[in-house]
Order: sequence, then C-alpha cells, then structure tokens
Amino acid sequence: MKISMERSALLRAVAQAQSVVERRNTIPILANVLIEAEGEAVTFRATDLDIEVLDKAVAQVERAGGTTVSAVTLHEIVRKLPDGALVTLSEEGGSGRLTVSAGRSNFNLATLPKEDFPVMATSEYGTNFKAKAQVLRRLFDKSKFAISTEETRYYLNGVYMHVADSEDGRMLRCVATDGHRLARIDAPLPEGAAEMPGVIVPRKTVGELRKLLDEDDMEIAVSVSETKVRFATPDITLTSKVIDGTFPDYTRVIPQGNTRKLEVDASEFAKAVDRVATVSSERSRAVKLQLDEDRLILSVNAPDQGAAEEELAVAYGDERLEIGFNAKYLLEIASQVDRENAVFLFNSSGDPTLMREGTDTSAVYVVMPMRV
Amino acid sequence: MKISMERSALLRAVAQAQSVVERRNTIPILANVLIEAEGEAVTFRATDLDIEVLDKAVAQVERAGGTTVSAVTLHEIVRKLPDGALVTLSEEGGSGRLTVSAGRSNFNLATLPKEDFPVMATSEYGTNFKAKAQVLRRLFDKSKFAISTEETRYYLNGVYMHVADSEDGRMLRCVATDGHRLARIDAPLPEGAAEMPGVIVPRKTVGELRKLLDEDDMEIAVSVSETKVRFATPDITLTSKVIDGTFPDYTRVIPQGNTRKLEVDASEFAKAVDRVATVSSERSRAVKLQLDEDRLILSVNAPDQGAAEEELAVAYGDERLEIGFNAKYLLEIASQVDRENAVFLFNSSGDPTLMREGTDTSAVYVVMPMRV
Repeated sequence: MKISMERSALLRAVAQAQSVVERRNTIPILANVLIEAEGEAVTFRATDLDIEVLDKAVAQVERAGGTTVSAVTLHEIVRKLPDGALVTLSEEGGSGRLTVSAGRSNFNLATLPKEDFPVMATSEYGTNFKAKAQVLRRLFDKSKFAISTEETRYYLNGVYMHVADSEDGRMLRCVATDGHRLARIDAPLPEGAAEMPGVIVPRKTVGELRKLLDEDDMEIAVSVSETKVRFATPDITLTSKVIDGTFPDYTRVIPQGNTRKLEVDASEFAKAVDRVATVSSERSRAVKLQLDEDRLILSVNAPDQGAAEEELAVAYGDERLEIGFNAKYLLEIASQVDRENAVFLFNSSGDPTLMREGTDTSAVYVVMPMRV
Repeated sequence: MKISMERSALLRAVAQAQSVVERRNTIPILANVLIEAEGEAVTFRATDLDIEVLDKAVAQVERAGGTTVSAVTLHEIVRKLPDGALVTLSEEGGSGRLTVSAGRSNFNLATLPKEDFPVMATSEYGTNFKAKAQVLRRLFDKSKFAISTEETRYYLNGVYMHVADSEDGRMLRCVATDGHRLARIDAPLPEGAAEMPGVIVPRKTVGELRKLLDEDDMEIAVSVSETKVRFATPDITLTSKVIDGTFPDYTRVIPQGNTRKLEVDASEFAKAVDRVATVSSERSRAVKLQLDEDRLILSVNAPDQGAAEEELAVAYGDERLEIGFNAKYLLEIASQVDRENAVFLFNSSGDPTLMREGTDTSAVYVVMPMRV
C-alpha cells in the first residue's frame, strides 16, 4: 500500500477513527485503525466491537493494499504535522511497518495484519430513512442528559429511538431517563421510518454520532435493524449495536393531569437555582420552590453551611405550593430551553413535575421531586 | 459589621483569598476568609499557615467590625451574582451568621469568630526594594518549570531568589532545578536589594505571586527576611514563609567549557521534538540528537511502537555529536525562548548541555543528557 493525502483530510479521517478506539484494550488490534486503499479512495476503519466507524477519503493511491496501525499514535503524528503538508503512508507487503512521511519527518509504525481486524458483520436493515443533521441533533442533544449511568439498569444506558403517536400524529421520538428525570423529544416522522423497530442507542454511540451532525442541512442516512443502527454521511458511516434490552413503558411516567402552571424566564430561573444551590450540601443538593400568586421563592437550607433565598417574578395563578428538587436536575432541564419561557406543570409536592417550552409539546421533560 | 461593595471589586478581592485557601483542611477556620471593615476600607485575609494574602478594597462601611466565612462559598456566591450588582455583607454581632444580599438574592452563611483566625506574625524585613511586575514575572515564569516535585528534596521545591555576581555585575537572580534540568534567570539588581539574604520561594507562593504580576508596569514592593518574603501591590499583600533549607551550590552544575555550538529556530525545534516524541514509550521519552555540519537529525526508536526521524537545517560547525535527552525537558526549555534562536552548547554526550537565547546570558538553562 502507498497513498498520499493532504494533512487536514487525513487528520479528519483519523480523528473520527481514534475517538471510537478504547484507550485500554486487552485485544491489541482494537487499538488500531484499518487503512485500506483501492482505486482513488482510502478507508479508515476503527471499532470497539460495539461501534464501528468507517471513514472514506479521496487520496492519491500509488499502490493498493491495506494494513492496521495504532489509531492514537497515527492521530497524534498527523495532528502535529504542519498544516498543508502532503502526507505519504506506505507499507511494503509483509514488512510489518508502516512508513508515515511528510517533508523532512519520517515515522515508522508497527502494524498488525489487516486480516486480523474484526470487521463488523453486515446486517439486514429493514428500515432506511433520511433525516437532516439538525433534526437528529435536536433529538439526541436534548435527551442525552437524562441517560442513566447505572450499569445495572443497562436498558437505560442509552436513548430510546422509536416511532410514537402524539397529538400531532406519528413522530420519530427519542426518550431517555434515569428514573429521576426523563426527556421525551419528538420530530416529524421521516419518510420510510414508519416501520422502524424501537432501538436503544448506547451513550457512546450518541456521543460519536454527535460529531457527524455539525452541518445543519446535511442529509444523514439512518438504517435500523432489531440489533443495529447505522448513521451515514457521504464520507462517514457509524454502525453500532443497540442495547439488547427492553426500554420501560415511559408513558406512564409522564403526568397528564398536572394543572398548576408556572411560567418563568428559563435563563433567569437557571441562574437563580445555581446561586441558591451554592450553599446546598454536596450530597443532597436540594432546592425548595415556594409558589404563590406570581411569585416564586427559591431556597436552600443547609444547617452546616448556611441558607439561601431568592425571589423571582413569575406567572403563576394557582394555589400555594411548596416542592423540592435536586438542583442539578433543575439546572439541566432549564438549560434545554432554547426559547425564553419554561413552563412547569405541577400537581402536588409528591408528584412528578412536567416541563416544556411554552406551548410546544415536541420536547417534554419530567422531573421527580424530593422531600425538603 | 455591615458593608456594601460593587460585585466585581468584591469578586476580585475574594478570588485572591480563596485561591490561597487549601481545599482540604483539618482546621475549619483555615477554610475561611477573615473580613474586617473599618473607615472606608475592607480587608480580606486568607491563609494556609505558610502563605497569607491580604486584600484591601474600598467599600461603603455602614458598621465597622469583622468576621470569617467560607472563602470558597463566598467566592462562588459572588461569582454567580449578576455583573454590576451591589452586594451587602452584614453581621449582627454574635449571631454567628453573615448575610450576603444583592437584589432579590439573600444568603446566610455560617461564621467562625474572627478572634480565632490565625494572622501571620509580623516580621522584621531587613531588605526592602521595588521591582516592576514584568521583571518579577520574567524571573519566576522562566524558572518555575524546573522546580522539583520530589518532596524528599524539599529545598528544591521552590525558586531560589538571591543576589549573585555575573559578567554584567551584581544581579537579582532566580534559580530552580530538579537535578535533571536547571534554570538561571537574572535581572538588574534593584536599589535596596544588595543585602538581601538568599531565600527559597515555595512553588505555591510562586503561583500566587503570578496573579499579582499581570500589569507590566506596576511597581511591586518586595520585602525579604531570613524566614519570610512579602510581595505587595497597592491593594494586595502576599506574605509567605520561605523554605527552611539550603539551596545547593548550583554554579558547579552550569558548564563553563562547552564549545560545540548549535543554533536553531526554537519554535521549529520544539515542534520537531514534539513530533518525533509521539512514538517514544511513555516511560523513557528519549530523543536522540545527531549533529553534523549544519544538520540536526532528531530521532526516537521505541521497538514496540515504532521509530521516528526528522531533519532540521541548523547552524552547527563542530565535529559530529550524538546525544540523548528526555523529550519533555527539551520541549520545556525550548518553550522558554522568546526570541527566534535557541543556542545550545554541548560538550560530550555524557555532559550537561547549556541552552540560552542568542547571545543573552541573562537566562541560561542546563539540561542533563540521557543514554539513548
């Protein structure tokens, strides 16, 4: 194999690959990226056995072939080369070494045979549809904060992407929850997605996917089977196993009958929560909300540290209510609000509270209260 | 005590105090800042028993007095208050609580009696002089990277500030070393400094001092005794114990007879070292320099990872030389060079190497070679 590429194109391709590679590997070849050159294209492939990323790039291919080298080392080298450099990767068949050269720099890297590289088995994807990058970004960005980190509840360690009925018809929906809070985000159902099986997309995949979604209008090809999900741009294909488990029936958690309505400037609210939480004890982080006629008092009482109280002018017309929340949960939810006003719907101080942006029901959050 | 201050002035004063406070304290009051109000001034004082910082600020003092509260909590609160807010700190004598209020925010913090706060004993400072912030900044910034982190060699855990003779007469000199590399930085001797005893300024003090040195032309008042050193701006006074030990005779370490001279663009050199070091093993980080007629070849050979080589055009007219260094040490030294050219003076591959900027001998670095 012998190829030449401009440094920035090579860097982009290798960066995506090395981010999938796990830093600690018991299987040496999983630390490597598989480079294959043919025709006028080079592919870079990396995997952790659950996720595989495949990056295609145009290159001057002088000699076709393939090999594998440490993804992290190759990335570091390319990153440190001067911008605009032409980089040549070459390997004499069977030498066990890949030469990386650019200008007066020469590197010689240990390789492992490409035949040993575990390429992910191809799947039959029953569902194939296209979605704009900005649509997928919204679905995952607004839900991922609620993903559980408890490994024992592995079926909550991802975002549940599925088709659901809403007031506005069938939707493409993403849900995540850790039992304390829940995010439910809807987008119009793309053509071809109607029969999609519900899949739980793992946290790491959500993170890797995010890197494909920077250009608002880019069309992302999404393919879904019972066991796998694939996201593809013209250059990059991200394939991931989905979590083998059943996502719980989240609909029962979303309160329907909450009538006490609070409207508040989301940014002012977040800042006030952040301030009063300063004195809360590390462990509980409890903030009390006292609601009265167009008035919200946020307070924290931590006997060892001190106390804090702040008043906000809000829109509230129901009867008095006192309710407590984890400050971190309130902050995370409030920071999801893009527009000005957050609308909270309460029932009693022991019931789950619902939050949405204005009258928009395409992004709904639920947070459990705590005793204060 | 009752005072009011504009948020940004309060933030600046508290920020300096909280950075001196140690995060883990067995003595509760050491986590606190001592606030004292009298006349039109408020002072904020914090200490870790080795360093004391005292910050003076102008405030509306409604009622004189003093108390102590958690420096970190007060800093967090003030940081989160909106810019431009007027902040009031008030304490009813003996209530054990300090109230912090701004706008609609109210905080109530636990206090400890000001009488229990350990104020550092005053000293007789035999030496007093003034130096521009930029002069002190250069002395400490260029030497501190070489401070040892080995606690057993406590006398190397700081910068040795003293008066020394050089070719250009008597100088104010800062030296730091960890046994592997050494930095020796000179500045013209300020008036009044001639009789200064040599003192070892601890690493943490060097870090805190740096925050006082942002304004190039600010005059810093420096006071030195056998046991303490004090740096003062009009607002802030930083007092520190010095390390109770004897700094070794570093002059013997600085090679005088090195004749093989290499001149190289410092930035190109640093980038090349960084690149070839990519393939070095975590532990050794050894880079080999091969010098020949106007040519430098940098190389690394790590059997498990690979090899790297890079050639640089340099000015070198002496006989061939091969010498190895720790890549990290070379990088740190090269990054001290402000001007274009680094000048290395070698003897043999087993002897310490000297580095300076061009012909300037006011900043000199020594680095020990390693076998490669």
